[in-house]
Amino acid sequence: MGMNILVAHGGGPTAVINSSLQGVVEAARDSGKADKIYAARFGAEGILKGDLIDLTQVPASTIQKLAHTPASAIGSCRRKLTDADYPTVIETLKQYGINCFFYNGGNDSMDTCNKVSKLAQKEGLDLRVIGIPKTMDNDLDVTDHCPGFGSAARYAAESACELALDASALPIHVVVLELMGRNAGWVTAASALAARATNCEVLTYLPEVLIDEDRMLADIEKAWAKGRGVLVAVSEGLCGLDGKSLASTGLVDGFGHAIPGGVGQHVTDILIRRLNIKSRAEKPGLLGRASIPYLSRVDREEAYAVGRKAVEAALSGETDRMVAIEAHRGEKYSFDLFLTPLSQVANVEKKFPLEWIVNGNRIDDKFFDYAMPLMMDKMPDYAILR
Amino acid sequence: MGMNILVAHGGGPTAVINSSLQGVVEAARDSGKADKIYAARFGAEGILKGDLIDLTQVPASTIQKLAHTPASAIGSCRRKLTDADYPTVIETLKQYGINCFFYNGGNDSMDTCNKVSKLAQKEGLDLRVIGIPKTMDNDLDVTDHCPGFGSAARYAAESACELALDASALPIHVVVLELMGRNAGWVTAASALAARATNCEVLTYLPEVLIDEDRMLADIEKAWAKGRGVLVAVSEGLCGLDGKSLASTGLVDGFGHAIPGGVGQHVTDILIRRLNIKSRAEKPGLLGRASIPYLSRVDREEAYAVGRKAVEAALSGETDRMVAIEAHRGEKYSFDLFLTPLSQVANVEKKFPLEWIVNGNRIDDKFFDYAMPLMMDKMPDYAILR
Repeated sequence: MGMNILVAHGGGPTAVINSSLQGVVEAARDSGKADKIYAARFGAEGILKGDLIDLTQVPASTIQKLAHTPASAIGSCRRKLTDADYPTVIETLKQYGINCFFYNGGNDSMDTCNKVSKLAQKEGLDLRVIGIPKTMDNDLDVTDHCPGFGSAARYAAESACELALDASALPIHVVVLELMGRNAGWVTAASALAARATNCEVLTYLPEVLIDEDRMLADIEKAWAKGRGVLVAVSEGLCGLDGKSLASTGLVDGFGHAIPGGVGQHVTDILIRRLNIKSRAEKPGLLGRASIPYLSRVDREEAYAVGRKAVEAALSGETDRMVAIEAHRGEKYSFDLFLTPLSQVANVEKKFPLEWIVNGNRIDDKFFDYAMPLMMDKMPDYAILR
Repeated sequence: MGMNILVAHGGGPTAVINSSLQGVVEAARDSGKADKIYAARFGAEGILKGDLIDLTQVPASTIQKLAHTPASAIGSCRRKLTDADYPTVIETLKQYGINCFFYNGGNDSMDTCNKVSKLAQKEGLDLRVIGIPKTMDNDLDVTDHCPGFGSAARYAAESACELALDASALPIHVVVLELMGRNAGWVTAASALAARATNCEVLTYLPEVLIDEDRMLADIEKAWAKGRGVLVAVSEGLCGLDGKSLASTGLVDGFGHAIPGGVGQHVTDILIRRLNIKSRAEKPGLLGRASIPYLSRVDREEAYAVGRKAVEAALSGETDRMVAIEAHRGEKYSFDLFLTPLSQVANVEKKFPLEWIVNGNRIDDKFFDYAMPLMMDKMPDYAILR
């Protein structure tokens, strides 16, 4: 008699969350121990409705396509489970005879994982619960970094280089690039690669530092005066000295998080109005987590590996753990995986180290020592003939 | 005694304009007939200042990097030459003893080319002038399509697919994607690939059709009600029934063109305010013409080939011509190049065929018969398990 496994996605997708799903399904098949492989349709929503997708018979060739399918192939949701919801979750697990539950998400999802596990134990269920880390924001604790971050960082870094080249080849405006990452500046920091790979002036603003608009404008004006083009990279979550979002929409998502918006456009507006400098704002938004052509090879390999590891851990009897990554930044990058208690990562947010932010708008090389192997195999190498 | 050649870029760069430059330089070197190879620093600005870059001795390995360098490696500008400027242009051509002049740009630039040529003839200069086509907007006449379009179209198409997958995997908001193309909808049309390659509802609005906002909102509401996620792709140049931009910035560029802006955000705003549907707008903007990972292989090959062809034509005595592309859409795509009089393409704008727009927001398969071979080798093939 084999095991029935269930995998679910929580929160925003990444470019490689489907690679983790591929790892789960292929490890379960390879183990020979899985009777049924289920996925929750639209994450917690599917679990609450008892709406599971049976992946047991899906052809191997379809599963392989997950490697280049962005977003979530099984659907996700932003619903945060309340205490009233957990009994319904347990009902679904019982109904389908689930023995192993894998929840692929960020720190909210690890909290969910932990609560499901505790309740299942109380109810006497034979359930093993393993968290699979995922977040482009890179704000999960304990793990060196999160699957999803490397690809989002590459997107930010390489897009910033490309915009910087455009901005300096046709220096008729300051180009502002707004990047995702509400509270953590990990992804936006990667845009500072443009300061290293191009001859454009690049200023990078992370949400960890409150913004003094007068100083920001003065710094941009000084950079603009050099005549080599200016790229200003801003996190969507930038706040002013009063701690309020530079450009809030006033909206709140299902987890109760405020939805920021329009920070890039706001910076563009003040450049035009206050300095009379022509400017335009670009906001790739969700493309920063969905783009397959900018996917990082290492990120995909790690996302696949954490999915496999979760299944192997559960089948060998582990529970209440999240898979985490240990990175080896030698001449050639490599990684190991280990397990960490869910309670250590639930609801903890890892911020960008303040000491890596130089003068409020430059990023220290230490960040790139950390991030480069996660996002790309080598530095972009452009021909700039001017 | 060899020839001195000058190449210049005009207007906005594309992902492959540097491939055309590579073609020019390599063809000039291969010919053995070029003494000096100059490039104008920042296009017409450099020509007017007599500020040329001497590329004659630049290593071949640097020239090869142009194939993956976005924007313009020699710089471009948006300055439209006036009658008062042309004598200065002729001075620079005389000063450097230029025999062949290549201007790489859109229909504005072909007009410039044509005027330079006419004046040079009047002044008795031995000058051959060949235009190299370039515009992501694809609005040049005579040529089947323009170098730069294929990559911009792939960017729009594949980004739209990726956003559509994200929008349908986590259907908490209508996702609006704003794409470049002021007057011509060629690039925005490519986003309709998402209606074919994903299971998301996709509505596509081109600038060729005036927008009835009430009808647009009703169509989006109907699509949203299906619960499978909605992607709305809009051209930056959309106008309302009154013929005015849906969201104008009131700014004008150096060619006197109005700068549109914020159409995507405008659609998002009316969805939230009038229908109470959560929505977010993404605007990759200049990334749509600068992205190297989304570059089209065919586009790069053609951009390189038109650069080479321009040099070969000039060296064989041709002048007053633009290189144009003849496409063969057989089982395997191929192309030929031919020369067309500059006067036939100067200031002519090729619009998107109205008969390819279905019900105001869908794109006919005929467009994809035309565009697919230009942008990608095969359809994206995603795993969608929901």
